[in-house]
Amino acid sequence: MIRINENFLKLQATYLFTEIAQRVNAFQQANPDTEIIKMGIGDVTRALPGACIEAFHRGVDDLAGDNTFHGYGPGQGYSFLRDEIAANDFKSRGADISADEIFISDGSKCDTGNFQELFAGDIKVAVPDPVYPVYIDTNVMAGRTGKMRNGRYDNILYLDSSLENGFVPALPREPVDLIYLCFPNNPTGATITKKTLKTWVDYAREHKSLILYDAAYESFIRNRELPHTIFEIEGAREVAVEFRSFSKTAGFTGTRCAYTIVPKDCMAWDSKGQAHSVHSLWGRRSNTKFNGVSYPVQKAAAAVYSPEGKKQTRELIDYYLENAALMCREIGALGFDLVGGENSPYIWLDTRKDAWEFFDLLLEKAGVVCTPGPGFGKCGSGFVRISAFNSRENVEKAIERITKAIK
Amino acid sequence: MIRINENFLKLQATYLFTEIAQRVNAFQQANPDTEIIKMGIGDVTRALPGACIEAFHRGVDDLAGDNTFHGYGPGQGYSFLRDEIAANDFKSRGADISADEIFISDGSKCDTGNFQELFAGDIKVAVPDPVYPVYIDTNVMAGRTGKMRNGRYDNILYLDSSLENGFVPALPREPVDLIYLCFPNNPTGATITKKTLKTWVDYAREHKSLILYDAAYESFIRNRELPHTIFEIEGAREVAVEFRSFSKTAGFTGTRCAYTIVPKDCMAWDSKGQAHSVHSLWGRRSNTKFNGVSYPVQKAAAAVYSPEGKKQTRELIDYYLENAALMCREIGALGFDLVGGENSPYIWLDTRKDAWEFFDLLLEKAGVVCTPGPGFGKCGSGFVRISAFNSRENVEKAIERITKAIK
Repeated sequence: MIRINENFLKLQATYLFTEIAQRVNAFQQANPDTEIIKMGIGDVTRALPGACIEAFHRGVDDLAGDNTFHGYGPGQGYSFLRDEIAANDFKSRGADISADEIFISDGSKCDTGNFQELFAGDIKVAVPDPVYPVYIDTNVMAGRTGKMRNGRYDNILYLDSSLENGFVPALPREPVDLIYLCFPNNPTGATITKKTLKTWVDYAREHKSLILYDAAYESFIRNRELPHTIFEIEGAREVAVEFRSFSKTAGFTGTRCAYTIVPKDCMAWDSKGQAHSVHSLWGRRSNTKFNGVSYPVQKAAAAVYSPEGKKQTRELIDYYLENAALMCREIGALGFDLVGGENSPYIWLDTRKDAWEFFDLLLEKAGVVCTPGPGFGKCGSGFVRISAFNSRENVEKAIERITKAIK
Repeated sequence: MIRINENFLKLQATYLFTEIAQRVNAFQQANPDTEIIKMGIGDVTRALPGACIEAFHRGVDDLAGDNTFHGYGPGQGYSFLRDEIAANDFKSRGADISADEIFISDGSKCDTGNFQELFAGDIKVAVPDPVYPVYIDTNVMAGRTGKMRNGRYDNILYLDSSLENGFVPALPREPVDLIYLCFPNNPTGATITKKTLKTWVDYAREHKSLILYDAAYESFIRNRELPHTIFEIEGAREVAVEFRSFSKTAGFTGTRCAYTIVPKDCMAWDSKGQAHSVHSLWGRRSNTKFNGVSYPVQKAAAAVYSPEGKKQTRELIDYYLENAALMCREIGALGFDLVGGENSPYIWLDTRKDAWEFFDLLLEKAGVVCTPGPGFGKCGSGFVRISAFNSRENVEKAIERITKAIK
């Protein structure tokens, strides 16, 4: 008899964004004339940069001829893309990352979800709260947690991020093995300084822990003091893996391309104390379960690093950052406390009431969709996330409607 | 201290195709003037069908405008693609599969590798021998096997496929929970009749087992009596999941698009005997660890079902089938026993010597790369797989060189 992985039964019945979609659909059906403005899911709304479109077309043209055709590509991705990433995202910032430490993938969701497969079932995992739900849910599926009690899974160490600590958690007081960090943070928009990030790297080196650093939003950083990559920090090559994506940088959410950096210095240990290369383990996993990213998509991604691509993606990000600044100013003026919205597309709003209640209020009175904080963890209680991924017109309309609904 | 998943240590050091690549590279470096003909990895060589190229370009154009832009798509894939699949691949063959039972993915390797995550760690797994190595390796990584002894992992039931049974294994004599089947088979090219496939479905219904049916090569079937999908078999909706791909059907190995069919009637059980929907479990897994396939790629895939697309993909497959027929005739004439090459792009050749020795002979004397059978399992001993994915010119050249090397 085929039996299920019972860890799945520990999961909450619905994924956060599925629950939101259901409420929105129900409202839309009851109010077919309301034009709903979606500031919930962090999905981009603007066209791909022109340089990417051109390269994308050229990639497709290559597939049209027998002599320029591309079948299975190199497992880690084409070097025409990995070389650009190494040079532009890392070496230019003084971070010593080489092209063969970069693995191209179809999304950071997959990579952040799959990476835990490399590690033992009984390691201790530390996860910020609030946080992108994928980190926790994939560890639940893998059996690393107990049941959920009072909104938290047993055996996970939650790293509280709150107003008190500026939404940057304190170091764990007990030894942990695998640490998820995400800066600029999803959902709070909080950022981390080099000095504070150094304390995490030092902690990991001391405890032989591994940091999984999600930098999907790094392109929103405008403050020159903030680190764009954990590999700007001394010693990080030994204890950190970093996730990056073209989704938010260049509007690739529907195009699908991301990359993961696994330095060759990163080690993990077996029960006899022997060290193993995390790079080799991830390579073996990728070779066995993944077959690479579409060739024309990799071509489009490489164009992000052309002079035009750089200019166009910067303009794209600036546009969303201006949306965020506008929302911070106007919604802040309504008397709400909020963080984020600088160096991040997200605003984290203290609603001073139940977050799902506020979600329903915004949906019903303003036709605006936000993301309730509790979907990201217990510390999200009373907060909602508002995303700057929208047209200026919609952002202005949303602000007007929210102002009317709240006053 | 971060500890590894020690199941990875049970794996053989290198993935089959990595080992081949290393030997080929070493030979090429030592013989830079030899033009190597690769008949090893099952990668297509001919351009994408024109209908797909046109649709691909139109999909890219949609991403170039704010009003036609597509961000995150529906988790299971766009209905414009799922509707075509349901109508053309299933309903037209009398197989009762609906669009919402189809999950679009970036590859069958990923899907066949990931599907086992849904099930308990201590289920009994049955795998044909020889077979695509991904089925076994992913179960090794998940801890369902013991160590390898004499070329086989403990706790796996191997289903021997040999000359004696026409490379279609007999039903298991002991109860098993999860059964992998692949027809037309990779690597042997063997096919299964409806009558025999029915005995597997009946077995699964009797034992409450689940069949994972890999039909990646179904488009090579030309014999009208053979089933294209397991869902042509009565009762299969309760006990089977099917994997399909555009890789071999339409030359998408570098474009990346596949699909998995999970009927809503499929059930798996928890330890209390309660039934759970496999469709729901796979949906939850996909929602959490996957973010869909590139929008223009899905557009290109949907064009496979247009009248021009159907004509062009049939011509593409016919071309490879003619290669296979040519090789069967000419290599058979050298006195070798072989199967496959009809209703399949693969020929399974009895070398009558050590397979790696024959591999080296073909590489060194003929500059032709084949795939050694032992890479697919113990029953592959003495066999090699030769692939028809190549240009006619290369196939003719390879035959000429092989003939000279063997005689």
